[in-house]
Amino acid sequence: MDFSHIRAMTFDVFGTVVDWRGSIISEGENVWTAKGVNVDWPQFADSWRGGYGPSMNRVRTGELPWMNIDALHRLILDDLLEQHQIAGLAESDRDHLNKVWHRLNPWPDVTSALARLRKRYIVASLSNGNVALLVNMARHGGYCWDCVLSAELAGHYKPDPEVYQTAASLLGLRPHEVMMVAAHNGDLMASKQVGFSTAFVHRPREFGPNQTTDLVPDASVDIVAKDFNDLADRLGIP
Amino acid sequence: MDFSHIRAMTFDVFGTVVDWRGSIISEGENVWTAKGVNVDWPQFADSWRGGYGPSMNRVRTGELPWMNIDALHRLILDDLLEQHQIAGLAESDRDHLNKVWHRLNPWPDVTSALARLRKRYIVASLSNGNVALLVNMARHGGYCWDCVLSAELAGHYKPDPEVYQTAASLLGLRPHEVMMVAAHNGDLMASKQVGFSTAFVHRPREFGPNQTTDLVPDASVDIVAKDFNDLADRLGIP
Repeated sequence: MDFSHIRAMTFDVFGTVVDWRGSIISEGENVWTAKGVNVDWPQFADSWRGGYGPSMNRVRTGELPWMNIDALHRLILDDLLEQHQIAGLAESDRDHLNKVWHRLNPWPDVTSALARLRKRYIVASLSNGNVALLVNMARHGGYCWDCVLSAELAGHYKPDPEVYQTAASLLGLRPHEVMMVAAHNGDLMASKQVGFSTAFVHRPREFGPNQTTDLVPDASVDIVAKDFNDLADRLGIP
Repeated sequence: MDFSHIRAMTFDVFGTVVDWRGSIISEGENVWTAKGVNVDWPQFADSWRGGYGPSMNRVRTGELPWMNIDALHRLILDDLLEQHQIAGLAESDRDHLNKVWHRLNPWPDVTSALARLRKRYIVASLSNGNVALLVNMARHGGYCWDCVLSAELAGHYKPDPEVYQTAASLLGLRPHEVMMVAAHNGDLMASKQVGFSTAFVHRPREFGPNQTTDLVPDASVDIVAKDFNDLADRLGIP
């Protein structure tokens, strides 16, 4: 296939760039259990993430006004702590725990492969995570985006088309000049509807050992890669 | 002074980070004279820049709807080409000439000093330049922002307070946690009104050998530096 028209690559972040589940389990077990958040961390991480889609949908339908991901994550966290009857956590600790989502670790291929990709393409995040979260996460993980793009800048959550349209517009590009990279078919399909090219990257352990979703790319994706280095190889970047 | 509360540094770009005048003169004389734009390039650069403030004010007052800097630069360019009776330039050339503002070169201290500052602080642009312009310019100059912030994201031009407020908000910070860095007192004073700390950097040749503006920092600035490396020294960053 001919990708000579591509100028920028926009990356889904949660699960595609970073291992949210492993990072939360690790910080939870190493830091928060001792502070009184004595829970089954794999289950807690899954529940926290499980609230993500429904909470964004409450914004999408207008039930909630625009709230960024930090704020939505906090609503879900407050509920979970109550369900687990963890009442004694000070506000500053709750806030810091909520911002574990700013400290998620990249998959091992990411840092070197993003540097390769940046030699040829504008490399940007395109995440439902808010700008501050993405900035802090990139600094934590030791990689740099040419541009931090977020649902927050569009006032809409993926997979709403406005997110992809805003991304292309802010980069000064037409949709066909942008390639969306994600481990999730829904995200890629929505970007393709707006005119983006698509690259599926396998992240079969994003949801742990029992993952059932996004194990196989949709037939319509333009590139399939096993990680970001394989993606760079397939695009012919040294 | 105590700067321990600072988490992020936001940088004015035109003149503070990049030498717009020298870059435009250089590309003009080396590329565009041969293509028929046979003008006095120092004068042309000064005139083009001279239209910048007035054009943003036409947006501020509502005379023009929101237009980003690429669009405003183009209005000024079209006027200048007409004044100089240069009619034969194809649209693709006009567009490429207009985007010389995406190819401005950083002052010599910038690339190494931004890398030093990024070790301790979130380092972001905060420019009237639009996002695409800033992204392309950083790639051209070989430096990377933790976050590209622009008037375009606020729908207002500096020195409107909304620009600084939006910047702090997107970074998840309160204004007093942000330090504005600029070679221009007006920008620094406006950021201080919103609660930012301020750092004046001397760029006495920004407007060429006959510069009369911003040669001396306002008495209220918090740090004065002769360039970005001096700024890093004064903040105690190795």
